[in-house]
Amino acid sequence: MSNAGPWLARVRMSRAVALVLLLIGILTVATHFYLPKFESTGIHRSRLKLEALEDLGSLKAADLKFRIEEMLQIKGSVSLELRDLEGRRHALQAEVGNYNQKIEDLKLELSKQQTELERLKISVEQAQVAQQEAIERNSPEVAMPKRLFPPRSALSEILPMPSAQESSICRMNLCFDYSLCALTSGFPIYLYDPEVFEYLETDSFLRTHLAQTFGYNPHINQDPSRACIFIALVGNVTKENLETALPKLPYWRVDGRNHLLLHVTRGPYGGPPLSKINVGRAMIAQSTAIEGIFRPKFDLIIPPAMGPPGGDIWQEYSLMVPARRRLLMSFQGQLASGAPKEELDKFVVAQLQSLLNTKATDKFILDFVCPEQYPASTTIQAVGGEWMPCGTESSRATILKSSTFSLILAPTDVAVSSTPLILSRLVESLKSGAVPVLLGDHLQLPFSETLMWKKAVLHLPKARVTELHLVLRAIPDSDLLTMRRQGRLFWERYMGSVQALTDTVVAALRDRLLIPPLPAEQESSPSVFNSSFVPLKMDNVVPETEAEESLGPIEPPYPSPQYRRNYSLFLTQGFEMWNDWGDPFHLYPQLPYDPLLPSEAKFLGSGLGFRPIGHGAGGSGREFSEALGGNVAREQYTVVMLTYEREQVLLASIARLVGLPYLNKVVVVWNSPKPPAEDLRWPDIGVPVQVIKAGRNSLNNRFLPYDAIETEAILSVDDDAHLRPDEILFGFRVWREQRDRLVGFPGRYHAWDLEHNSWNYNSNYSCELSMVLTGAAFFHKYYAYLYSYWMPQAIREKVDEYMNCEDIAMNFLVSHITRKPPVKVTSRWTFRCPGCPVSLSEDNTHFQERHKCINFFSEVYGYMPLLNTQFRADSILFKTRIPHDKQKCFKFI
Amino acid sequence: MSNAGPWLARVRMSRAVALVLLLIGILTVATHFYLPKFESTGIHRSRLKLEALEDLGSLKAADLKFRIEEMLQIKGSVSLELRDLEGRRHALQAEVGNYNQKIEDLKLELSKQQTELERLKISVEQAQVAQQEAIERNSPEVAMPKRLFPPRSALSEILPMPSAQESSICRMNLCFDYSLCALTSGFPIYLYDPEVFEYLETDSFLRTHLAQTFGYNPHINQDPSRACIFIALVGNVTKENLETALPKLPYWRVDGRNHLLLHVTRGPYGGPPLSKINVGRAMIAQSTAIEGIFRPKFDLIIPPAMGPPGGDIWQEYSLMVPARRRLLMSFQGQLASGAPKEELDKFVVAQLQSLLNTKATDKFILDFVCPEQYPASTTIQAVGGEWMPCGTESSRATILKSSTFSLILAPTDVAVSSTPLILSRLVESLKSGAVPVLLGDHLQLPFSETLMWKKAVLHLPKARVTELHLVLRAIPDSDLLTMRRQGRLFWERYMGSVQALTDTVVAALRDRLLIPPLPAEQESSPSVFNSSFVPLKMDNVVPETEAEESLGPIEPPYPSPQYRRNYSLFLTQGFEMWNDWGDPFHLYPQLPYDPLLPSEAKFLGSGLGFRPIGHGAGGSGREFSEALGGNVAREQYTVVMLTYEREQVLLASIARLVGLPYLNKVVVVWNSPKPPAEDLRWPDIGVPVQVIKAGRNSLNNRFLPYDAIETEAILSVDDDAHLRPDEILFGFRVWREQRDRLVGFPGRYHAWDLEHNSWNYNSNYSCELSMVLTGAAFFHKYYAYLYSYWMPQAIREKVDEYMNCEDIAMNFLVSHITRKPPVKVTSRWTFRCPGCPVSLSEDNTHFQERHKCINFFSEVYGYMPLLNTQFRADSILFKTRIPHDKQKCFKFI
Repeated sequence: MSNAGPWLARVRMSRAVALVLLLIGILTVATHFYLPKFESTGIHRSRLKLEALEDLGSLKAADLKFRIEEMLQIKGSVSLELRDLEGRRHALQAEVGNYNQKIEDLKLELSKQQTELERLKISVEQAQVAQQEAIERNSPEVAMPKRLFPPRSALSEILPMPSAQESSICRMNLCFDYSLCALTSGFPIYLYDPEVFEYLETDSFLRTHLAQTFGYNPHINQDPSRACIFIALVGNVTKENLETALPKLPYWRVDGRNHLLLHVTRGPYGGPPLSKINVGRAMIAQSTAIEGIFRPKFDLIIPPAMGPPGGDIWQEYSLMVPARRRLLMSFQGQLASGAPKEELDKFVVAQLQSLLNTKATDKFILDFVCPEQYPASTTIQAVGGEWMPCGTESSRATILKSSTFSLILAPTDVAVSSTPLILSRLVESLKSGAVPVLLGDHLQLPFSETLMWKKAVLHLPKARVTELHLVLRAIPDSDLLTMRRQGRLFWERYMGSVQALTDTVVAALRDRLLIPPLPAEQESSPSVFNSSFVPLKMDNVVPETEAEESLGPIEPPYPSPQYRRNYSLFLTQGFEMWNDWGDPFHLYPQLPYDPLLPSEAKFLGSGLGFRPIGHGAGGSGREFSEALGGNVAREQYTVVMLTYEREQVLLASIARLVGLPYLNKVVVVWNSPKPPAEDLRWPDIGVPVQVIKAGRNSLNNRFLPYDAIETEAILSVDDDAHLRPDEILFGFRVWREQRDRLVGFPGRYHAWDLEHNSWNYNSNYSCELSMVLTGAAFFHKYYAYLYSYWMPQAIREKVDEYMNCEDIAMNFLVSHITRKPPVKVTSRWTFRCPGCPVSLSEDNTHFQERHKCINFFSEVYGYMPLLNTQFRADSILFKTRIPHDKQKCFKFI
Repeated sequence: MSNAGPWLARVRMSRAVALVLLLIGILTVATHFYLPKFESTGIHRSRLKLEALEDLGSLKAADLKFRIEEMLQIKGSVSLELRDLEGRRHALQAEVGNYNQKIEDLKLELSKQQTELERLKISVEQAQVAQQEAIERNSPEVAMPKRLFPPRSALSEILPMPSAQESSICRMNLCFDYSLCALTSGFPIYLYDPEVFEYLETDSFLRTHLAQTFGYNPHINQDPSRACIFIALVGNVTKENLETALPKLPYWRVDGRNHLLLHVTRGPYGGPPLSKINVGRAMIAQSTAIEGIFRPKFDLIIPPAMGPPGGDIWQEYSLMVPARRRLLMSFQGQLASGAPKEELDKFVVAQLQSLLNTKATDKFILDFVCPEQYPASTTIQAVGGEWMPCGTESSRATILKSSTFSLILAPTDVAVSSTPLILSRLVESLKSGAVPVLLGDHLQLPFSETLMWKKAVLHLPKARVTELHLVLRAIPDSDLLTMRRQGRLFWERYMGSVQALTDTVVAALRDRLLIPPLPAEQESSPSVFNSSFVPLKMDNVVPETEAEESLGPIEPPYPSPQYRRNYSLFLTQGFEMWNDWGDPFHLYPQLPYDPLLPSEAKFLGSGLGFRPIGHGAGGSGREFSEALGGNVAREQYTVVMLTYEREQVLLASIARLVGLPYLNKVVVVWNSPKPPAEDLRWPDIGVPVQVIKAGRNSLNNRFLPYDAIETEAILSVDDDAHLRPDEILFGFRVWREQRDRLVGFPGRYHAWDLEHNSWNYNSNYSCELSMVLTGAAFFHKYYAYLYSYWMPQAIREKVDEYMNCEDIAMNFLVSHITRKPPVKVTSRWTFRCPGCPVSLSEDNTHFQERHKCINFFSEVYGYMPLLNTQFRADSILFKTRIPHDKQKCFKFI
């Protein structure tokens, strides 16, 4: 029955066509017989008339009258006939016009119906495939991981127990009780309250701030019966006091299993290390490591706490460019008194001093005795043969900020592989952007189980001091800046503030136990409507006529699968999570970097969700439009629109989204404190429209990771943006292939102002771009998390201050993380209604702010993360000459 | 003076325009006055004539004659006048036509002149910039690294010397003599001849093949006075014999410094490990590691030698897909007799056995006593509490090839962290594509200083056996296949053959010492001409007229800088070189993955070679065409053309390249054994044309890394390909942005044949592609090395067998390494001359072979590396409506 409609339409149309063809035929014949023919060019016509007169002249006058009368008669009748004919012609013309109109209408209707039918068919097919998949699927839907606590089994009893004397050989398999730490437990941590156990942590600054920052860590769980790890803060206490205090800790259980003794020092200052103390099975985290005492892969080396308690720390960092600074390398230090003089170290110092005499243009500061104005500290306790720092933190920073490299010399005692002094030199160097050069290949660096220090520091044996200058000069600017950037990443994320330090200690242990992080929190999505209110519906919404092509199936909402890699992500991509683009502190429902399957897998056992084009045979036209194809499984996208008191513009924009394939939901972020008028009629576009009440009017709300967004793909659109359905669909397909990038329509770029040595924002026509406007752009929901919770707060504040630049901020963020430019799609240069007026002055202020934003954001990141691109993405057969029986990918793009 | 030419042209043209305008004006006036006007529609004209007759009828007859005569007169004169007029009209028309033609010619000439001028100007400007850079440059040109050997300094004397008893605490800083191993030395290795020192290596298979494969290693240098490392092969010898033999080695120098005792076992079989032997300062490489005896970061853990001596080993590997195999996990083993029974192991076995009883659909083979048909080996020596393997290598392979995961249980003795038995299980699992599951978190894996095993194996503590099933089920197919692929990489590259094993041992040590690898060898480029022969020149070559636009400056040849990262590559990207796309065994002049500079660096100190568009201000039109812009410094590309006995086609193709900006050189690979005819006239296109005599007629020659190719970018073109200059330029710009990918013009794809469960090659119009034809494609020279020396030999042989498929092979290679699809540029679907005939049968054979190639290559890689892409790259303003005063990026594309 559902086929009857279009079939009837087709019958009716063919009859109409026949009728009209008949009429046209009659008319043509009539015109041919009754109407004399004339040549058409001016000169020829005039000549013809003259020749007619000539013929007339040769007739006799008598005949002439008769002939003339006859002709007059003929003329009269012909004239009548002609008038009659012309009348009929007019009538017929009108009729033909009429029929043409009808045929056009019918054609349009037919094409609409056919498109609709095709859409329906595709949708039915896709629904059947999805249903089949649902039946065949043998794994359950995956949800956000739930914390599960197994019964504390008998396993802990059979853990081999080292004797107290053996605590020095503790390894995870020997001394750690895994039964307290189920993979599904969420890694609960119990922190001994440092105010109660203050005999352990004596430094009040650390006591306060460590407790505070641990308090912000979501793993802290003050139910000791569920804890996996017990953390005790240990300060400057004597061996005797500590050995007395530890067994008295309420959950010590004789051997201190699963305890972490956290000994944080404030910069290079701090008490003696925990050394040769019987700590049972407890792990120690401190800045000191002595060969033979430090227990590898059991104890942790941590940097000293030198930064502020928390918050943005980018202000402390110096800019990364220029790559080469005034000094090639700097070092200031003084051997702690009483240090053993080793032959090797004498040789090293002599070699380094000889650098000062080289004829090369390179400049150094190398002081092995502190200069008078920067005396060595007298309060710092040093181990054997350590190099004491000179001057103050700020005097050192001044030198470091002018140094390309910063030398860090290992103590002369070869058993010492880490001390607070060495690590505070490391942290100070990273913070000032001086690439650390460690001499002493036995030195150990903090968090080395997860951090790849090779990427950030130059680590050489002392014996290579003779080759040091060669290496420093041989490192090209690109690698130098890569190392500096990596150093900043390590510093900012893992050690720049007390919060970063404590979070990293927790994450490093969690990572060692293979327990996934806790899920990143999403933003809740409160409705702008009262729960009882039912918004009015618009009567009926018709799709815009311009895109009369089937772009894909209309399917029921299908949220992207989530949390599928909880137990494998840190295996296959843990390295990247820690050292590159990742956030090792949170678990995300999906990542833009999820690995791809080999392309035969979708036909051999792993096909769930895949929709290969032409069932694997490829193709264009219909085959292309009915399947998503590509390298990843089917999915949908969510449109997110920010709106502020432009209700009619908004509703029209939403209405334009009707019938969009793969659209999962429209999320409207209602920035105005005034709720929508109750009599507004909302369009029914076939998918849910969820209107979220924003906490406050901020452009940053555009990028909040609302829990209402259930797909990986977000299409951010301005409430007045005009995008065509085919453009949206193509953009979606391009994004699916480059999920880690911003994929947008209008492009912009950052231009260098030679005069002011700064950046300008530029929207001129250009063949090189570096940004796409997020008024119409696809991005991964992962970036919404990063924008809202990971990006420095200063950037969001600047966006709020100017009510501007949120799109620039997003471009910076994505390019910073990926080191790739955005992708521009199709030929659009702008997407706003061409008529909408923008006052010039407003436009100018807007631009001035954007210049300022670009320069400010660069300062926050320490460099300019934007990169250039010189091409755009078009559909494969766009403007391609193809045979007539072939179809393109899209009709118009 | 140089401005005079175009200025004159402009004057001439403006005069011509004025003249023509005048003529047109006169003509219009004349026509207006002399020619009567007539209405134009048919019916109106007929009516007019009748009315004229009517007027005639009302006249008197007498008058009529006079009037008629008068009229005849008038007619005569009018007629004459009209003929005259028409003659003049014709003349005028001809004249106008003439002038129009002249104007067109002048315009064309003008535009040519202007383009030429612009080109010249740009070229002059660029030359000035380059000259300026040459003056300012303060670093010397970098060449391929030369081996430099420092004098054996006194440093070796002050190396702290551990006593013999202390050899167990040997670390690199304590026991290694760096003075023998300068960074610039090229890492020379001395191998004690195993035939001479056969009392050390007693196994004749190993003696022969280890010596042979070391012989192929370029680091082997039989001059002991220059050696950095001395390798002695140690086999199944007793402690006493060894301790007697070692000090007798000619270069042992009392303490065995810088010696590596290499103890390779053949599979799980082999003598007892080197343990508790006084080896002085020598390092030990073996498969066994015992806690407390193994010296971390000094000794090496190596896998047993289980594969063939060398050559292709892909045949031994099983296919990667399907992800999930019949068995979820398998294990067969039997505790060595006399093993201590530990509580924990009993618990582990019980837990694992309980898996067999689960109601889940998962299938297991878990035998903790060898089944009757697969008895445990009786010849293998095992350490305490080891799990002996069951059956034969082939019986085990049968089970492993059906297993998704393969269990490897640590011995019950917790001090044992590696044995030949464990590692042979590991190697067998990797080879069969069963993902290894290691139970025992204290186990150590081979080459773990450089290999990130987390990416390939699941490594859990024994205590997590209760959670094992959860984890196995929770790993999604995509991660599972990623791990399997990584496992294959580790196996194939580092342990699959004896050659792989010895190369890896050498590379691991070299990497530890931070010495760069030796440069990869290039292919020499013998000229096809005798040294005395001077080829004839074509008279003059003019550029094709169709691309009358300035595409960029014509500059002198500028080879890409090379070997700039010798001492930093393995710092910033060493991880990737070992674990991902890299080749850690060779040093390449450049890599497609070199890191990018922040974009302000090019304006602040690191600008050497950069050519920002509009000097940083961006732009389109002229600004765009005169600078390369982008994220990397300026460079050129080399055209490589393979040719076989089509001399005229070739010469025409070369001639078409005249005046191409950024073209460095044309390299013609002369595949025919017959040298070119002596009377051939070669076109002078402004850059060198180097004709290389190929060793033999092979399509693989298209991708040889000839030393004549001095740029990173290679544009491979067929000798009959028709590409326009603007397309080439745009392709080059796109490639510069995606240097790791193939960037080509016509696209093709691999289609799944549902009927035969195999792949087809497809060249139909499609909206999804996976290959670009290398008859016109840009790629990085790095891939030429990989294609020729790294890709399995079987693929090159198949190309030679069919004389076909070399382009498919290149697409496979690049997608395999990058896991990215190629990039298609502009709208071309084909590039061959449309008239060139291809017989249908020939075409059909060609296609059949390509189907076979695709399936064969997939087998070699173990999976299908090609990936889909659904967009192409166009220039940013292509088909964009822009204001009239703006220019596009290119005129036509």
